[in-house]
Amino acid sequence: MADHVVTTRFEGGMTFKSELDNHIITIDTPQKDGGNDGGPRPKKLMLSSLAGCTGIDVVSTLNKMRVEFSNFSMDIEANLSETTPKTYTWVKIIYRISVNEEDKDKVKRAVKMSKEQYCGVSAMFEKFATLEYEIVFE
Amino acid sequence: MADHVVTTRFEGGMTFKSELDNHIITIDTPQKDGGNDGGPRPKKLMLSSLAGCTGIDVVSTLNKMRVEFSNFSMDIEANLSETTPKTYTWVKIIYRISVNEEDKDKVKRAVKMSKEQYCGVSAMFEKFATLEYEIVFE
Repeated sequence: MADHVVTTRFEGGMTFKSELDNHIITIDTPQKDGGNDGGPRPKKLMLSSLAGCTGIDVVSTLNKMRVEFSNFSMDIEANLSETTPKTYTWVKIIYRISVNEEDKDKVKRAVKMSKEQYCGVSAMFEKFATLEYEIVFE
Repeated sequence: MADHVVTTRFEGGMTFKSELDNHIITIDTPQKDGGNDGGPRPKKLMLSSLAGCTGIDVVSTLNKMRVEFSNFSMDIEANLSETTPKTYTWVKIIYRISVNEEDKDKVKRAVKMSKEQYCGVSAMFEKFATLEYEIVFE
């Protein structure tokens, strides 16, 4: 038995329903590509995966450090290769967060620990793209 | 401006809402990890991304070839590394599809074209994992 198993069913048009952890994600294309725009395009889901992975790491670490924070979000920017198949060549994670002045270094440490030690999705991204990050304190 | 931009917001607990292509995906952890199980774990979303990418390729190609098919689904099986950070080391896509006997070779060609030419997500996976596939005619 494999460690992870995900089943994805074609539902007509260009619509797919993917079942993972007993939740359903819809993937679709815009109408110009034969779909019905019932869900996002598949490739960008990799960027959501990356955000979720590092986001959970950062929240877990800040909770352990007893750092209070608010307004936490991440923008992920990514550039594609010029040639087909289009792959991500450059990816930047912009962490946005509000913390007290004295906790800023702890946020920097939490982000660095996610990138270097914890986040498996980041580690996979680093095999095909340049992965950068920035922290914006708001 | 980057080619793709995805914004993901922390919503408390371990819940994240990721916005892509004007759709919202919820990512969460089980309660034992501090979450509320409001959505799937982030890493498996990469497998949904892979299924969606190659699935759209296969449907597009079969449509162009005027092949009639039904019951199309994909199971993706994946194994993780023993060491942390946990990355996918082996991934297998099992395509399940019903077609007329004389169209089976066209399905094989569509799957091969997705892997070798079209699917950017497959190309990224091949940078960090062994990627295999199998076609099951049902």
